[in-house]
Amino acid sequence: MHGSMLLRFVLITSAIVLQLASSNVIIQKVEEKVENECNLSENLINEIRGYKNVVLKITDQILNGKFKGEVHKSLQTFTDKFGSRMAGSDSLEKSIDYMEALLKNEGLENVHTEEAKVPHWIRGYESATLVLPRKAKIGLLGLGTSVGTPQGGIIADVVAVRTFDELRKLPDSKVKGKIVVFAPEWEGYGATSNYRKSGASEASKKGAIAALIRSATPFSIGSPHTGSQTYDQGVRKIPAACITVEDAEMIWRMYNEGETVQIHLEMDDYNLEQVTSRNTVSELQGSKSPNKSVVILSGHLDSWDVGVGAMDDGGGAFISWKAVKFLKDMGLRPKRTIRSILWTAEEYGYYGAKAYEREHKKNEAEEFNFLIESDTGTFDPVGLAFTGNKEAECIFREILSLMIPLNATQFDTPASAPDLSVWINRGFPGASLLNKNDKYFWFHHTQGDSMLVEDPGSLDRGVALFASTAYIIADLSIDIPKVIKN
Amino acid sequence: MHGSMLLRFVLITSAIVLQLASSNVIIQKVEEKVENECNLSENLINEIRGYKNVVLKITDQILNGKFKGEVHKSLQTFTDKFGSRMAGSDSLEKSIDYMEALLKNEGLENVHTEEAKVPHWIRGYESATLVLPRKAKIGLLGLGTSVGTPQGGIIADVVAVRTFDELRKLPDSKVKGKIVVFAPEWEGYGATSNYRKSGASEASKKGAIAALIRSATPFSIGSPHTGSQTYDQGVRKIPAACITVEDAEMIWRMYNEGETVQIHLEMDDYNLEQVTSRNTVSELQGSKSPNKSVVILSGHLDSWDVGVGAMDDGGGAFISWKAVKFLKDMGLRPKRTIRSILWTAEEYGYYGAKAYEREHKKNEAEEFNFLIESDTGTFDPVGLAFTGNKEAECIFREILSLMIPLNATQFDTPASAPDLSVWINRGFPGASLLNKNDKYFWFHHTQGDSMLVEDPGSLDRGVALFASTAYIIADLSIDIPKVIKN
Repeated sequence: MHGSMLLRFVLITSAIVLQLASSNVIIQKVEEKVENECNLSENLINEIRGYKNVVLKITDQILNGKFKGEVHKSLQTFTDKFGSRMAGSDSLEKSIDYMEALLKNEGLENVHTEEAKVPHWIRGYESATLVLPRKAKIGLLGLGTSVGTPQGGIIADVVAVRTFDELRKLPDSKVKGKIVVFAPEWEGYGATSNYRKSGASEASKKGAIAALIRSATPFSIGSPHTGSQTYDQGVRKIPAACITVEDAEMIWRMYNEGETVQIHLEMDDYNLEQVTSRNTVSELQGSKSPNKSVVILSGHLDSWDVGVGAMDDGGGAFISWKAVKFLKDMGLRPKRTIRSILWTAEEYGYYGAKAYEREHKKNEAEEFNFLIESDTGTFDPVGLAFTGNKEAECIFREILSLMIPLNATQFDTPASAPDLSVWINRGFPGASLLNKNDKYFWFHHTQGDSMLVEDPGSLDRGVALFASTAYIIADLSIDIPKVIKN
Repeated sequence: MHGSMLLRFVLITSAIVLQLASSNVIIQKVEEKVENECNLSENLINEIRGYKNVVLKITDQILNGKFKGEVHKSLQTFTDKFGSRMAGSDSLEKSIDYMEALLKNEGLENVHTEEAKVPHWIRGYESATLVLPRKAKIGLLGLGTSVGTPQGGIIADVVAVRTFDELRKLPDSKVKGKIVVFAPEWEGYGATSNYRKSGASEASKKGAIAALIRSATPFSIGSPHTGSQTYDQGVRKIPAACITVEDAEMIWRMYNEGETVQIHLEMDDYNLEQVTSRNTVSELQGSKSPNKSVVILSGHLDSWDVGVGAMDDGGGAFISWKAVKFLKDMGLRPKRTIRSILWTAEEYGYYGAKAYEREHKKNEAEEFNFLIESDTGTFDPVGLAFTGNKEAECIFREILSLMIPLNATQFDTPASAPDLSVWINRGFPGASLLNKNDKYFWFHHTQGDSMLVEDPGSLDRGVALFASTAYIIADLSIDIPKVIKN
């Protein structure tokens, strides 16, 4: 995922899960409180509880039947075939062609793509060498949209800081012409990744000629992490890269010991004109209202250019479309349409989702009933995170309580859904996968984002949770309530 | 460490620690059994137990007094200053000069170095690219002593196997001219690192032109591991490198799916003539017999050329000499000499220790009383592993039982001491640090071997354990019994 504050909530959830595991008392209290606050009609409650056997059937067929292990196998074939899929790359477009053909072949309905303009950034040769106080290679990855250095690179002294505040307090003369090394402490992804996102701009404002930023992770095996960054309006664009936690900490120490720290940085990275990419759409069309009150299941197909994007977000994309396929194969066609969307260019900032939003704006209130996403890992699922109004929450909690066979009844709020934020932030109700993703940022945007992270059983449970939830919402007698802001 | 089967024992130990933590019954049983088998005189038992207060004093001064945190600080200064220290490198020799001066400056006695011839291998530009079935960078690190490719590299089809057996069963015609990719499952360091050590030789015997081997680790974040390898007598020397677990697994799958897998491999690595390096010796000389029945505390100063060798084996080297220094500073001079040795060129196969053995061979039985080493990490210590005869073990267990203030009374056998194996395998009694090193191989021989792995409190407890144990053994009324084989 690209997201900013999304994972804060997921981490909080992990804490809650632990708490719950050790105390039934707390579970009961939460449930009582919810029931007291909700005023769902007995009819609706009974209607929802009537789906208990559907959940059992879906769960059984996916966990124990012919679908067992299929998501993992299919995802492995896909990632082995295409590897990384960065926006703007041939690899991504070929993988979209492949998915469109595959979805048709697998019998999904209304399979098509919808266009979106996306960034086209090229990572060239990248190298950083510590020149003083001693020679050493520095592990780095340039950041998406970063400009390059002049050919042959730049050699400059370093100014190392832990925070933006520290940098701002330095006289400009101390930063001018230098390479700023940001070595922020790990304070969660939201806080620490701000240095990746804005480090170059903040350094440039002080006259620096490049920014090297600690990778946004709590744990490292000499592994640099890439990601997106943005130049503020009007600042001189300077090269920006993430370096390993190990190197950031060491350089920070050297600088603070009073050493002259000098780095030779070479980055042949550059930006090209935007290109056209595509969101990939497929459906199980509703028996009663195929074109309105659609339930969306989604993940993004693009990735960074390191690793193979199995975790971010191959797993999320694949449980989304496989849920739709499995429902169809099981003959479970709900009243409303369930639509799988495989977003493009999430990593640069939801380019695919934003284009889709613009195209579908006119009738969006009628078109979208409920939106679901997985983009924070597909480790073992524990439940769903939700955003929506009180009434919607009451209905959602009733549905979630049916996920006992999957051991995935955990509720959290708000949803962590970067692509869907373009709707959810305006009042559309939605949900995201809650999973045991405490190691998510270890692999995030690194060479380590591989199939080794993905477990067949966890993917089966994830897809069963998505299929069950989407089916019930798409089949209910009522839409999920919403109040849309514009 | 360089070692082969050493870590098997350490891993077993971890299991025992867990068991002990949850069951006092087991602890009691183990103790009873030992007491029944031992026939130490009451005098000797009382003498050993008389050191209880010395252990308390050493522990208190190191954990709570002026020495607190000193090992970590000193090790950090050292690794920041010199970085990696590969045998044959200027960096290693400069670090030895620095250590010799530092040890003198810190007041250690008889500080000097002793020469050893060591390998001199150069890592040049290294690159591997998957060419077919699709283009992708492969993460790799050439292996110590590997020859390079011709300039411009080689492009060849891949044969991928999980085991040596699989390779041997293939007709030579299927391997000739190919690059063999070994993708062994992780079965512990001893078993899996055999593919690193012998992969090139085995592949060469079948006519292969290069060998790429899964890194010897159970866990990876896209991190290649280096290490030593050896060419069997008479085989054609072919380039050998470790690739990441992620890439090894993926290539193995592609090959087994029937894809033509092709790799472009370029390695500008080469071997030079051996050069002279040095073991670094310092002492706290015994009050009664300074030149015989010496107790050795040791670790190795060399490292691979990735990371900074903080874990392998900076921590082990530093707790060894700091233990001697702290004893001196505390005014605790034992009857016999305690000698710290910082070995050179362990990583290529104990070159420093072997040279030292040859030089000291003549009177070795008189010269060496007991040998201690740390080369499997300096994580939180839990005890000591031991090798020696039954009588020696009984004495050692009595001493170890005094380490309650350090919570480090765990006994295991045999010792995991690669450098000392040249003596211990011939009957000299010795010990090694047992520590919570379950993540040791995650960082081993990678860019992740950094100060982030080292914890000040763990180093304090490790140095206190080394100082206490060495002091008691060096001060006892008797030598540790031994029967030497030649």
